Amino acid sequence: MDKIIYRPIGVIHSEHKDTAKTPIQPRYAGGARGVVEVFPEFAEGLCDIEGFSHIYLLYHFHLSQGFKLISKPFLQDMEHGVFAIRSPHRPNGLGLSVVELLSRRENLLDIAGVDVIDGTPLLDIKPYTTKFDGWIKSASNGWQDDVSEEEAEVLGSRGNG
Amino acid sequence: MDKIIYRPIGVIHSEHKDTAKTPIQPRYAGGARGVVEVFPEFAEGLCDIEGFSHIYLLYHFHLSQGFKLISKPFLQDMEHGVFAIRSPHRPNGLGLSVVELLSRRENLLDIAGVDVIDGTPLLDIKPYTTKFDGWIKSASNGWQDDVSEEEAEVLGSRGNG
Repeated sequence: MDKIIYRPIGVIHSEHKDTAKTPIQPRYAGGARGVVEVFPEFAEGLCDIEGFSHIYLLYHFHLSQGFKLISKPFLQDMEHGVFAIRSPHRPNGLGLSVVELLSRRENLLDIAGVDVIDGTPLLDIKPYTTKFDGWIKSASNGWQDDVSEEEAEVLGSRGNG
Repeated sequence: MDKIIYRPIGVIHSEHKDTAKTPIQPRYAGGARGVVEVFPEFAEGLCDIEGFSHIYLLYHFHLSQGFKLISKPFLQDMEHGVFAIRSPHRPNGLGLSVVELLSRRENLLDIAGVDVIDGTPLLDIKPYTTKFDGWIKSASNGWQDDVSEEEAEVLGSRGNG
């Protein structure tokens, strides 16, 4: 299998219009609101999603050109491998965010905690669940353990918090 | 943007050879071991990943044919929208697992908690971090709140636990 072809199932709308000011993660997005628009032909797939308080968005970093195997993360002035950071400049430009689901209006989902730039093509939505996703009680975090919560908050919100 | 083309960056090797017996999530995989092989041209991107105890694998459900907008999850005999369940039969066949990273041997990662079938094409690896991913302290889980932990454990391990 050398090529995998996906098609957007929708678009993520957000208040973030400038990559340099977009928060780097939902946690640092200061509750920023957005709307996930699922194209009408896929809207039936949203049935019962409104019972979940959080959802994964999988999307394509459409503004990212090319990739770097080694680069600096937003939170630290040291180089690491691309698979050890969350940079958008990845071999496959896949983005992943867990956002809060506020409400559903037919094919539109109102969300909070958006760290995604306006107009981002959406590839998939999965429910975040306590059973499947909330079971990791402690983790070692490599280079991130050297970044304080305060530093992360300031750098991660990028002035948009 | 109507087509997004990705190329595998590696392959996931596991003890699971039969989709019907593959655990449905890492949590129910009973520590099953596996090896992530990253193709040599991308191996530099693994630099410093060994500091993380958990990683996200993003992969392609290569054995899944087509999709169903409404279907039954493994854990419940009731239909829900595909975006409210974790079925592999999705409009874009994207899979997501958080696995434990045991060790790195150059371009090979030894992992535990594998819920992925042997030979699955790998699209991306991201570090799982307490700061970015461990901050959701409580969640509402829609239909999953009606499934007991015991039931989930039995159904989710699919005899492979």
